[in-house]
Amino acid sequence: MKISARNTLKGKITEVVKGATTAHVKIDIGGGTIVTASITNAAVDELKLAVGGTAYAVVKASDVMVAVD
Amino acid sequence: MKISARNTLKGKITEVVKGATTAHVKIDIGGGTIVTASITNAAVDELKLAVGGTAYAVVKASDVMVAVD
Amino acid sequence: MKISARNTLKGKITEVVKGATTAHVKIDIGGGTIVTASITNAAVDELKLAVGGTAYAVVKASDVMVAVD
Amino acid sequence: MKISARNTLKGKITEVVKGATTAHVKIDIGGGTIVTASITNAAVDELKLAVGGTAYAVVKASDVMVAVD
Amino acid sequence: MKISARNTLKGKITEVVKGATTAHVKIDIGGGTIVTASITNAAVDELKLAVGGTAYAVVKASDVMVAVD
Amino acid sequence: MKISARNTLKGKITEVVKGATTAHVKIDIGGGTIVTASITNAAVDELKLAVGGTAYAVVKASDVMVAVD
Repeated sequence: MKISARNTLKGKITEVVKGATTAHVKIDIGGGTIVTASITNAAVDELKLAVGGTAYAVVKASDVMVAVD
Repeated sequence: MKISARNTLKGKITEVVKGATTAHVKIDIGGGTIVTASITNAAVDELKLAVGGTAYAVVKASDVMVAVD
Repeated sequence: MKISARNTLKGKITEVVKGATTAHVKIDIGGGTIVTASITNAAVDELKLAVGGTAYAVVKASDVMVAVD
Repeated sequence: MKISARNTLKGKITEVVKGATTAHVKIDIGGGTIVTASITNAAVDELKLAVGGTAYAVVKASDVMVAVD
Repeated sequence: MKISARNTLKGKITEVVKGATTAHVKIDIGGGTIVTASITNAAVDELKLAVGGTAYAVVKASDVMVAVD
Repeated sequence: MKISARNTLKGKITEVVKGATTAHVKIDIGGGTIVTASITNAAVDELKLAVGGTAYAVVKASDVMVAVD
């Protein structure tokens, strides 16, 4: 499946914390940068996300803001 | 100003394309990764975003999805 | 690629309108329901989206609201 | 109230799971398609969302991605 | 229609600018605060949004960030 | 840091409720209007958000919908 989302950042999962319904997944995309995703527990289970696995952080362009110092 | 958004990816602006109301800004965050942001033309003007400038791609954790191969 | 987004609605593309930077794509998902997506022109080109093609509307669960009469 | 969101999918609620702060609501919109919404517990209470009730999944066009096989 | 979105800010429309596909609508919610919405041209037409009209800015709680000085 | 998000609403925090992973923060922006934000517990801790503190609700324009009666 190819998706319209413009941003797909490859990395390694460094943390998976499930809450009551919502999980937080951290992906190390290299260069010292960790990306945090807030997704459903159901998605964690279905995709079998686990520490050490390869994964992509996917973000729609309209959800990216720009900041400057 | 400190913001709750969990993801702040530092890089250099490589492209700014303004449309009628919406602009696309590309930021090279290193490691061969370009992030695309879709923001208002007004924000481009106000932040004086231009190619070569240092900028951050900022993304709320709830806007990050996770994908696996 | 499998993605964490909980909602993947299969249908047929009925309209693709490109603007200056942002395109609107309509997908008929059956039962008389048309879904409208606002995505980048670049994604339309890369995925070769065209009227009559099969496509999926993909939505993260945290972007779905619920309404009642 | 009429809202600018382009997508309003009518269906029947099939599941309501409340977490600590965030609830997941599933709506069967017909044709074998279930839509999952992640909303606040407070909204579930205020709208009295319950299994069997008629409800609409509402999504802003800019939150819809498009995917192809 | 009642919606799960937690934030509904009432005001008066002060500007409507249509682009090629995307419009920007400004709503004065009082206290010197203007809210900007980026929505489809189609929604502007359907809701007959025009300067001087009463309108609500509606935002899902998961799309609100918090910042501190 | 200056951010592209068009909407920054200043107010006072009136409630902070942490869930298992996701927190709800209410900010009174004046004129009788309370804004609710759903953010990570981690952000609440890092920004030391607490009742009575001054804070800003920040929203990207593309996450704002418009409604009319």
